[in-house]
Amino acid sequence: MFQASTTAGKIFDIGLFILIVSNITLLMLESVPSVSLKYAAVFKTLDIIFLVLFSIEYLLRLYCVRSAKRYAASFYGMIDLLAILPSYMEFFYPQWHVFMIVRSFRLLRIFRIFKMVRFLDESRVLMFALVKSFRKIIVFLFFVLLLAIFLGSLMYVVEFQHNPGFNTIPQSIYWAVVTITTVGYGDVAPATAVGKIIASFIMILGYAIIAVPTGIMSAAVIQEEKKSRKKHCPHCFAAVYGKEAAFCSACGQKLDQSF
Amino acid sequence: MFQASTTAGKIFDIGLFILIVSNITLLMLESVPSVSLKYAAVFKTLDIIFLVLFSIEYLLRLYCVRSAKRYAASFYGMIDLLAILPSYMEFFYPQWHVFMIVRSFRLLRIFRIFKMVRFLDESRVLMFALVKSFRKIIVFLFFVLLLAIFLGSLMYVVEFQHNPGFNTIPQSIYWAVVTITTVGYGDVAPATAVGKIIASFIMILGYAIIAVPTGIMSAAVIQEEKKSRKKHCPHCFAAVYGKEAAFCSACGQKLDQSF
Amino acid sequence: MFQASTTAGKIFDIGLFILIVSNITLLMLESVPSVSLKYAAVFKTLDIIFLVLFSIEYLLRLYCVRSAKRYAASFYGMIDLLAILPSYMEFFYPQWHVFMIVRSFRLLRIFRIFKMVRFLDESRVLMFALVKSFRKIIVFLFFVLLLAIFLGSLMYVVEFQHNPGFNTIPQSIYWAVVTITTVGYGDVAPATAVGKIIASFIMILGYAIIAVPTGIMSAAVIQEEKKSRKKHCPHCFAAVYGKEAAFCSACGQKLDQSF
Amino acid sequence: MFQASTTAGKIFDIGLFILIVSNITLLMLESVPSVSLKYAAVFKTLDIIFLVLFSIEYLLRLYCVRSAKRYAASFYGMIDLLAILPSYMEFFYPQWHVFMIVRSFRLLRIFRIFKMVRFLDESRVLMFALVKSFRKIIVFLFFVLLLAIFLGSLMYVVEFQHNPGFNTIPQSIYWAVVTITTVGYGDVAPATAVGKIIASFIMILGYAIIAVPTGIMSAAVIQEEKKSRKKHCPHCFAAVYGKEAAFCSACGQKLDQSF
Repeated sequence: MFQASTTAGKIFDIGLFILIVSNITLLMLESVPSVSLKYAAVFKTLDIIFLVLFSIEYLLRLYCVRSAKRYAASFYGMIDLLAILPSYMEFFYPQWHVFMIVRSFRLLRIFRIFKMVRFLDESRVLMFALVKSFRKIIVFLFFVLLLAIFLGSLMYVVEFQHNPGFNTIPQSIYWAVVTITTVGYGDVAPATAVGKIIASFIMILGYAIIAVPTGIMSAAVIQEEKKSRKKHCPHCFAAVYGKEAAFCSACGQKLDQSF
Repeated sequence: MFQASTTAGKIFDIGLFILIVSNITLLMLESVPSVSLKYAAVFKTLDIIFLVLFSIEYLLRLYCVRSAKRYAASFYGMIDLLAILPSYMEFFYPQWHVFMIVRSFRLLRIFRIFKMVRFLDESRVLMFALVKSFRKIIVFLFFVLLLAIFLGSLMYVVEFQHNPGFNTIPQSIYWAVVTITTVGYGDVAPATAVGKIIASFIMILGYAIIAVPTGIMSAAVIQEEKKSRKKHCPHCFAAVYGKEAAFCSACGQKLDQSF
Repeated sequence: MFQASTTAGKIFDIGLFILIVSNITLLMLESVPSVSLKYAAVFKTLDIIFLVLFSIEYLLRLYCVRSAKRYAASFYGMIDLLAILPSYMEFFYPQWHVFMIVRSFRLLRIFRIFKMVRFLDESRVLMFALVKSFRKIIVFLFFVLLLAIFLGSLMYVVEFQHNPGFNTIPQSIYWAVVTITTVGYGDVAPATAVGKIIASFIMILGYAIIAVPTGIMSAAVIQEEKKSRKKHCPHCFAAVYGKEAAFCSACGQKLDQSF
Repeated sequence: MFQASTTAGKIFDIGLFILIVSNITLLMLESVPSVSLKYAAVFKTLDIIFLVLFSIEYLLRLYCVRSAKRYAASFYGMIDLLAILPSYMEFFYPQWHVFMIVRSFRLLRIFRIFKMVRFLDESRVLMFALVKSFRKIIVFLFFVLLLAIFLGSLMYVVEFQHNPGFNTIPQSIYWAVVTITTVGYGDVAPATAVGKIIASFIMILGYAIIAVPTGIMSAAVIQEEKKSRKKHCPHCFAAVYGKEAAFCSACGQKLDQSF
């Protein structure tokens, strides 16, 4: 059941994928009042069916794995538990608010899909590139955050007496993040002339800054793809070739394809 | 008529290009009430002229191609038919709403322009780069969608009691997509302090994520251009090298540098 | 005067640069009613001074160049003329509206600054990269425009009965451009559920599309910089090095630095 | 104390980091009226504690460094002074407005964190890439600014009679910056048909322009990483090669591959 390589394992994985996607779709529709009120009985029944199915799956997993304890303590084991356990609490606390939050826990099962998809070749290259540039991206995001705090505070000093959107520093930092990332909701916007001039410079700055993570990722993807295409010549050690090369392009010796 | 290499074929293609562009312009202007009411008679006449011309073109194509059936069943054959057939239905259902949707089908002919332009050298490199990175981009977009569903649901739990913009999960997911892609309409924006903090992190995350497809495309374009700068071996014709290679990496023969 | 290499030419260029920048600043301030009303007399005087200075410059240029005719017919000659000629028309048509448009022509002199700056080393690499990828970018932008027309029309069909923001096709195309480019003003936003779902897909698509010009430019800049750093070994022809290499890294022969 | 390499120096640095972060957090919370009114006494006490701690730090630094004068005149010395000096002025001018601006100076200490973090390996690559492409980015941003001035003025001429958002040229330039950088607040948006058409072209242009800094940064990061993967010659120490080089390109000696 845990080995995706067997046919049965694949069928199980696809079935689980369909189950999770349909459960998430159900949860989404349930949150729309006009739909959930109309088909209240249908939703209630389907909810119980999904709960039973996921409970069976959890018990099966506990039974199948070599170490039930390790599974229960693992990241995915926790998610599987969190997706079913709170639903049972509804019988004791049937208020609507609790109910919605409890339901939301089931969305955590989206991580199961992440896990399934990550074995695809394409996501492997992406994953490697992400892992390789992870620390650089984190350092960069930290700089962006510091910058947002500094620029947000600056705008606070300039605008807070004229603009209710900048009435506190955290609010101004929120505006700085919205601006630097070029999202630009417009719920908070500078009102004074000085504020607009500073904002213009922040935008142009943010425009240049967005190039940094892109450069990092580009470098990582390019290198990752190069690596998967190359091999060294065993005779002269000097050159590096594409996978399909049969002779070394530096010394002319034959290359062993199996090398 | 199908061979763009002959002079007559080129003239036909350019004529068709002008016809399609002017028809699309007409359709656009027709949708503007202030214009369409003023020149109603002109529009009506022009509409009939275009319909006749496109009908003639369709019949000509059916007559010219080797297999009329294969053309009619092809993607472009379907588009050509969809662009003219519904217009005839106006005589039977002359209501305005049906009329506008029927007209819109003609816009499908924009794909004809895509087809014409794709033979340009520039769009060929773009096309190759797109095709090569297509699967990676799709996997990436799937991850972004999963992320949007997860983050949208999270914001729903945080905001739905205080903000009508987050009153359903699909609406919150719509907000998450608007935010991660840095579009940021501002029609839905977080209102609570916790919501704004989470939103700030989502924006900074989205800022880093946008680097991924860019990295993929950069790598693809760079590789595609490298390939077009390499040379073929004059002995075995099979392999492709960098400009500075001295020996063919497929057959081991010396390469003439002046080649 | 046209040769920036002499000391006098450099001083003239810097003087002209200051003149143009201060004139543009003046024009900007003049458009702000609260400022222009207060210092009306000052502005009037400065306007006349600038007009006289630029007129002298134009006459000097006409006098200095080898062919006065060719200069007058050149792009920069036209701009220089357009920047001064309309100002004289104010005496005949002193209405305010005409006045403002006439003044705006002076802003065309910004192109003079472009011309001055383009000799810097940094802008040369940018320029080369832009020129090299120009045709590809144009083809790409044409695709984006076609896509915006198609998606705008699609949204028009979906939304036009429920949303005044999508009441005509051109307006919908405007929305599509705002969305695909991730600008997202929010002055027009989808209102129906179907519209929001389509909009979400358009945004995610636009997110992937923005990677294309970036990939093109990255490839162009990388290649442009590589070119300016490399030289070939005159002994073995096989290898390519950085500018500072003294010996060939493939055959060990000494490299002539002047080579 | 200035040497981060000793254990004591590291502890001091970490302590200072915590102190600065908690002080910045305090300043942020202080700007939120609902919080600062509730815990006014707590804030007052903590403010004094932080002031004393930072004053001690400043005096310690003055005492420890070899040249007290040079430290006091250095960038970080100025920041350290600005972070404490104005706070003492509160006793003389206790108005609230002065108070907030004075407090904001403490945020300048964020630069201290920048200084601490910049020794991390990851930020070093980023820093080098930024420094290398700094001049190019500046030239590019200057072009963007000129473009924004030109396009803003163009939109001013088109829109200023119909749209209060474009009533002055500086305001129109602000709009142009918001648009080209794809921030798109929506507080100013074109209202006329001509304005919307021009705006659409500006957006598509801005879409292509954003590729330029990204290309520059990508090239810089890729080169920076290549350099860090290269090795030094053990004979002359002067030159740097790719991993596969067989001879030193500076002194011509054979390179040991295992090196």
